[in-house]
Amino acid sequence: MSGLDLNVVGKKNPEKSYKYTSKDVILYALGIGAQTSELQFIYEGVSGGLKVFPSFVAAPRYIAFPKLGKIDFPKFIHGEELIRLHQPIPSQGEIICFSEVTSIYDKGKAAVINVKTTGLSKDRNPLFEIESAFFYLGAGGFGGDRGPKTEKITPPEGIEPDFSVTYNTTENQAALFRLSGDLNPLHIDPDLARFGGQEKPILHGLCTYGFTTRAILYSLCDGDISRFKEFKVRFTNVVYPGESLTTEGWKDNGRYVIQVKTDRAVVLSNAYVIID
Amino acid sequence: MSGLDLNVVGKKNPEKSYKYTSKDVILYALGIGAQTSELQFIYEGVSGGLKVFPSFVAAPRYIAFPKLGKIDFPKFIHGEELIRLHQPIPSQGEIICFSEVTSIYDKGKAAVINVKTTGLSKDRNPLFEIESAFFYLGAGGFGGDRGPKTEKITPPEGIEPDFSVTYNTTENQAALFRLSGDLNPLHIDPDLARFGGQEKPILHGLCTYGFTTRAILYSLCDGDISRFKEFKVRFTNVVYPGESLTTEGWKDNGRYVIQVKTDRAVVLSNAYVIID
Repeated sequence: MSGLDLNVVGKKNPEKSYKYTSKDVILYALGIGAQTSELQFIYEGVSGGLKVFPSFVAAPRYIAFPKLGKIDFPKFIHGEELIRLHQPIPSQGEIICFSEVTSIYDKGKAAVINVKTTGLSKDRNPLFEIESAFFYLGAGGFGGDRGPKTEKITPPEGIEPDFSVTYNTTENQAALFRLSGDLNPLHIDPDLARFGGQEKPILHGLCTYGFTTRAILYSLCDGDISRFKEFKVRFTNVVYPGESLTTEGWKDNGRYVIQVKTDRAVVLSNAYVIID
Repeated sequence: MSGLDLNVVGKKNPEKSYKYTSKDVILYALGIGAQTSELQFIYEGVSGGLKVFPSFVAAPRYIAFPKLGKIDFPKFIHGEELIRLHQPIPSQGEIICFSEVTSIYDKGKAAVINVKTTGLSKDRNPLFEIESAFFYLGAGGFGGDRGPKTEKITPPEGIEPDFSVTYNTTENQAALFRLSGDLNPLHIDPDLARFGGQEKPILHGLCTYGFTTRAILYSLCDGDISRFKEFKVRFTNVVYPGESLTTEGWKDNGRYVIQVKTDRAVVLSNAYVIID
């Protein structure tokens, strides 16, 4: 009834080749708000060579998205995202990318679909993994396993964060970010956004994820992408283009607990980052 | 000595095929500051179909740039630009584009190189012509013709303009605009900009031209690209990304005299537009 094919679990989807140039890398960087002061991410001729924001790996993943059956996309919501990096992403070339649905859980009203996406260099060395969770509203109740409880990650109460960075998004942030691959009209078409229950088009969750990656990179890694290892978030509220994003982080053993807020709401929570 | 080959005059350069998608059209629109309220230029799924800003034709022209000899590009300055449109540019497809150096004049210190670029549809119907003048500093004094005096076009003194529109550029406007084709590092590299005699990277003249095209389109054409016929400017001063651009126009028989200012200077002058 939901169109979801439960038999996709555990099957590797075909490998895709994502070919890209420095222009794609720069377009992505501008899409997540990079400024001219961040020359290493937006200028192909920069001394030391163009660098790639770790969250860029979301671009190749679009082409490797798994087959799931006949999905009603307005009811399909990106819930969680984890990116694990094995080495810096080259500034141009080719990435081999493939995905697998690792589990589908039955949460009653919704199904939770867990997808693992793997990225390899052209000579098949590991570049990254992405673990995504999607909530598919109305697709639960098929008698499946509820799945394990997820770890609850919260900032320590009453403790000031170790860092806090605020970035402004622009009115046309989503219009720019979508050129990096996710053309879902929910992020630009006012009529479709209203139809989907939003008062206006919303920013891509992965755009917020990218802004947060920038904040972490400058606050904790001195701008060095090779120190950025693993970053996991839950998307908890919508962001409208033009809102500001405040990223806060608290040191917590070998990682930092991360939280991102707009003036209205917490938008990324249950989040951590591991850096070197 | 200047490297300029005077024998290029009057020779048609090879035809080039410029293939583009709606993504190129949207990227260009964002590069000249289009906002989400201008949905017809930035959303491929917009009701009525994606439209193309008339100044987009500067993108295909890059690939058809004429051979001129061995040019020292820091001394090569875009002086004037005229775009004549025969029909609206399709939102995707292929443009056949070729150029010809129509004359090289000897202004003493500088040479002036006049280039005509022609754009045809795939079935060879005329789409546009571009007439550009480039000043090549230090390349004059070769005993050539000084060329005719150009028409002087100035706003009427003491008369309020018939329209005035101010747009803000952003700090990374040039970083975004350059992804539409003109990767000259003068527009992003602080070291090279200083080497070229600028205190910091400057906005592309054609980006200012594009912002002005937007201003004219909304002030005089009700946003209807088919009414935009011919637009000629002289580039008279540099613009830095982040500055605001005020476009003013005065009705003058069958055309409008146009002038564009920042807070510091007049940056486009000797300019007119013809609309339907």
